[in-house]
Amino acid sequence: MKISVPTLLIDKKLVLKNISKMVEKAERNKVLLRPHFKTHQSAEIGKWFKELGVKAISVSSVRMAKCFAESGWDDITIAFPVNILEIEEINKLAKQVKLNLLVETKESIQFLQKNIETSIDLWIKIDTGYHRTGIKWDKQKQIFEIAKEISNSSQLNLMGILTHAGHSYKSRTNTQILEIHKETISRMLSLKSKLVENNLGDAKISVGDTPTASIAKDFSDVDEIRPGNFVFYDLKQLQISSCTEDEIAIRFACPVVAKNEERLELVIDGGAIHFSKDFIINEEGKQIFGYLTKMNEGKWGTMITDSYVSSLNQEHGIVKASEEYFNKITVGDTVLILPVHACLAANVMGKGKLTSGEEIKLNCR
Amino acid sequence: MKISVPTLLIDKKLVLKNISKMVEKAERNKVLLRPHFKTHQSAEIGKWFKELGVKAISVSSVRMAKCFAESGWDDITIAFPVNILEIEEINKLAKQVKLNLLVETKESIQFLQKNIETSIDLWIKIDTGYHRTGIKWDKQKQIFEIAKEISNSSQLNLMGILTHAGHSYKSRTNTQILEIHKETISRMLSLKSKLVENNLGDAKISVGDTPTASIAKDFSDVDEIRPGNFVFYDLKQLQISSCTEDEIAIRFACPVVAKNEERLELVIDGGAIHFSKDFIINEEGKQIFGYLTKMNEGKWGTMITDSYVSSLNQEHGIVKASEEYFNKITVGDTVLILPVHACLAANVMGKGKLTSGEEIKLNCR
Repeated sequence: MKISVPTLLIDKKLVLKNISKMVEKAERNKVLLRPHFKTHQSAEIGKWFKELGVKAISVSSVRMAKCFAESGWDDITIAFPVNILEIEEINKLAKQVKLNLLVETKESIQFLQKNIETSIDLWIKIDTGYHRTGIKWDKQKQIFEIAKEISNSSQLNLMGILTHAGHSYKSRTNTQILEIHKETISRMLSLKSKLVENNLGDAKISVGDTPTASIAKDFSDVDEIRPGNFVFYDLKQLQISSCTEDEIAIRFACPVVAKNEERLELVIDGGAIHFSKDFIINEEGKQIFGYLTKMNEGKWGTMITDSYVSSLNQEHGIVKASEEYFNKITVGDTVLILPVHACLAANVMGKGKLTSGEEIKLNCR
Repeated sequence: MKISVPTLLIDKKLVLKNISKMVEKAERNKVLLRPHFKTHQSAEIGKWFKELGVKAISVSSVRMAKCFAESGWDDITIAFPVNILEIEEINKLAKQVKLNLLVETKESIQFLQKNIETSIDLWIKIDTGYHRTGIKWDKQKQIFEIAKEISNSSQLNLMGILTHAGHSYKSRTNTQILEIHKETISRMLSLKSKLVENNLGDAKISVGDTPTASIAKDFSDVDEIRPGNFVFYDLKQLQISSCTEDEIAIRFACPVVAKNEERLELVIDGGAIHFSKDFIINEEGKQIFGYLTKMNEGKWGTMITDSYVSSLNQEHGIVKASEEYFNKITVGDTVLILPVHACLAANVMGKGKLTSGEEIKLNCR
């Protein structure tokens, strides 16, 4: 394959393996797999999911929901607190597909009651410890009020309670991930039983996040799982311990445009508009924007932790290289890099190339 | 103007004022203003520059050069170490427009000697203290070798020496910016005189960076200036002291989708795929992804430093609000935010809206 500009490479075989593994886990647990498509935003990769039996998806915006409705998906959860300013688009979409929304404020529900034109399923967003969005799992009074508010409307149907345990991203071991999983499930189950006791509906439970969905085995107490990143995985997930290196299904290929011998640095064509600006902190406290991999003539080599992307500007990337790696590289070579955050990288790139050479769109723009 | 999704607003009057100020500075100094178009990547904003007399531009990739060649620009410097893997596109473009390239390695020059199909102007990239790319200003032997290598070829013409004093971004006062400016000019002048003494050409001097171009008054010793960010400015430039708050020509308008009273937080529709992930550190050591502004019925209000975007995920933004601000805001309101890094924000957004309501493209994709 001829590469002359920064290119996001995707190994379809690895992607299919990652999807299959999650599909099987969902089947074993008899839960619905509703993968989050914000990671790839691709109609083509959507097809691969469909071929492996996936029927329902999550997205993070109305725009993304429209995009996947157009490519044939008809059961879509917008896993983002409903933006009531988009009511026109929501009404249009809800007539085309089964659209599920997230609510956490009375204002939004009252607005929907007045303005929604078809019956719609709502999930109450619960904060089980991440503290980003949602009502805290132990604020029973507030959650009950929301549930009652929903039951006042004939158009609005309470589907259940939904959480994203994003604090799992602070984990560094499988044990830590499993602790968060256990705590999340227990908080959601306790809340569910209280809702049932109070005749507020037979609430379903939806949980998300790639770390717990990748590591935990038992999901028998929930109704659906919504991981997204697992389709590609990345360095962040590797650091969390939610994947192994050989499960990471993407690499950046970047041309080397200059070398600095004194600093053992390579300048690559590849910057923040390709990788995004997310980084991990390594054991020495350094910011890592990507690790380089060995050059294995055509095959994807293993990661080299002493050669890494140390800084990114808009289009420039600086690689701190080991002496051995530095000496192997010539200006005009292309290096392969494991990216830190697959979702943001795919979004800013907007497209990728399968290892077979075929280009695919990775953005709903 | 109806806003229902995260929107990058652009005040054309402020943009024109920023451009005019830089045009006048260049005229007073009798230097060529070759603005860097990577900040806006917009054919429309390009026109505004043209109307104010600008004739030559900088870009940061071949792709961007093609994009602006298509909209009529015919003197374009690709201010990025030449990526020799793009030789086909470079050859095509160099036949259409006056294309100027940056070199810093013998390998690139030898490659160009063999493969370039038209005569082309080259700038030697000099590192005057930023230590990202370029040959260090005091590595005279290495720079001479590069200059000689260029003079060996009939197709390659040495235009001069070019630097980007990106370390000016570490400044916090005008005095610090002016010190870097003085040092940069003195290093470039000393190098130029050595090149002249050694009959290596009457090298021109090109300097860049918005901080020094905004603050320094005297550019009489250089031949061209290449600032980019000044067209919009942003919080980073404000922190550096290279602009005033009322020169920042962009704001994000973001819908509020949830409120958390306990934490005095607003959840906004607006995340890393809108703002990018760049942040500044405030005086208390906090990461700031954007400051909120007062709501002044239609007019752009002033910045409120106790209400700010404290974290960003792919589509979510979390605003830490003062109690006063928090209480004024209702779910469904739209807040205005000063972004940290205009160039990356414009790139990820890909489009913006003039305050008059007209949408413009902000990306060469």
